[in-house]
Amino acid sequence: MPGFQSVAIIGLGLMGGSLARDLAARGARVAGADADPEALRAARAAGVVARPADAAALAEAELLVLAVPVTAAPEALRRALPHLAPGALVTDLGSTKGSIAAAAEAAGIGARFVGSHPLAGDHRAGWEAGREGLYRDALVYLCPAPSTAPAALARAARLWEELGARPRKMDATEHDRLLAWSSHLPQLTATALAGTLAEAGVPHAALGPGGRDTTRLAASSPEMWAAIALDNAPALAPALDALRERLRQLQDAVAAGDAEALRRLFREGRSWKE
Amino acid sequence: MPGFQSVAIIGLGLMGGSLARDLAARGARVAGADADPEALRAARAAGVVARPADAAALAEAELLVLAVPVTAAPEALRRALPHLAPGALVTDLGSTKGSIAAAAEAAGIGARFVGSHPLAGDHRAGWEAGREGLYRDALVYLCPAPSTAPAALARAARLWEELGARPRKMDATEHDRLLAWSSHLPQLTATALAGTLAEAGVPHAALGPGGRDTTRLAASSPEMWAAIALDNAPALAPALDALRERLRQLQDAVAAGDAEALRRLFREGRSWKE
Repeated sequence: MPGFQSVAIIGLGLMGGSLARDLAARGARVAGADADPEALRAARAAGVVARPADAAALAEAELLVLAVPVTAAPEALRRALPHLAPGALVTDLGSTKGSIAAAAEAAGIGARFVGSHPLAGDHRAGWEAGREGLYRDALVYLCPAPSTAPAALARAARLWEELGARPRKMDATEHDRLLAWSSHLPQLTATALAGTLAEAGVPHAALGPGGRDTTRLAASSPEMWAAIALDNAPALAPALDALRERLRQLQDAVAAGDAEALRRLFREGRSWKE
Repeated sequence: MPGFQSVAIIGLGLMGGSLARDLAARGARVAGADADPEALRAARAAGVVARPADAAALAEAELLVLAVPVTAAPEALRRALPHLAPGALVTDLGSTKGSIAAAAEAAGIGARFVGSHPLAGDHRAGWEAGREGLYRDALVYLCPAPSTAPAALARAARLWEELGARPRKMDATEHDRLLAWSSHLPQLTATALAGTLAEAGVPHAALGPGGRDTTRLAASSPEMWAAIALDNAPALAPALDALRERLRQLQDAVAAGDAEALRRLFREGRSWKE
């Protein structure tokens, strides 16, 4: 891997485990850690992770990647920092970017921190769900900390380009506000719909192809998504308000037998989709 | 087509137009009507529809199919009935079954009416969206009227089996209650989410694959769905109540920073999906 002979990845789930596979396949020596000892064992058995991400490995790492749930990332950063080589680039793979950028800044490593959010992955989780090439063609938001050095940003962009992804720089606050609507709200919607159907005793098999698509995201990892929703609570609140308000408008139109209002609401949804 | 040499189809959109193609391909003489003269012209030009579904055609029809929005079906039935051959089987293709069964009963043709609801089709609409084979392998709910004759039900079942579909008998009221949750609620959810994103100025291109799936149904026909929602309003109301309540629970957990409650809500959605 040009520029990164030695990397440390904390978290070997779908995202971290896929990155480990990509980097190992390009010749990097990957050190890994995971809260689940079995994940580390499997990653080593697969020949992807060469050694545990212990103090010695961190001291040699040119790149540290935090790939844990977003609410756990700041603590993982603080634990790794005392051992980390002074020149190492630090990034993460989380779905929110404000809190980790602030944590990096507060820890004094803002200059060499760049947050990454690859729009990749699926509803599965864990080491076994990962695969080489997961990030190919994926859009990756790169969100610098306030004091990120231009050279660090360029290194992070090169890393993702090397894996076939499309990095795009975005302010962390702007990122979190956009993703609250474009990603976190759809996730919570699918989760709410699935939970509603579960409570009503409607089996998944009763749904047609459209209903199955609408609820597909409900299969996502509860741990990961609880962390994202909590971390991005301020941006998510108005999005949830807006969705509940629109559902109320639909419900009012149904209750009033207002065909014109209903058609307008359906048309607004369709226009956006098209 | 065994049993149906001559059929009349009112409505040549995705559902009616696909059925017309299937029946014509099996040798039936298809008479057609559509509110859009262009649809009828195209169906005739394609060699699928042989003649307009006028009084003469209805007098010869062995099967009448209503394939118009559900709130328009009872009126379409009343208009066709004075001309219809006395022995003709009558069915419809709508997504609600209670109101059309009641209309058939009230019109005095309950004995030879069987409602059909094929779980097929997609978000596109109109004659051009139809295709031969749309109903192959599709589940088709068959909902009799109170006085439907067993022979009529058997004829309707044979029709669908002939097209490769899987007919399943269900009480009309039970059907409408189940579909309010399994189909109409997912549709309104996707519509509400899409409308919310439109209002917030979030472009469709900002969504990842999961968000695109969650909103896919929003592209469905506004006319068709406004009719379904209104026709099934009594069954839909509690489903919308339940969804809004669950969204409120998610929002409360986010606002309170209650990770355990959030994980539980995400887990309930995932358990149902799996």
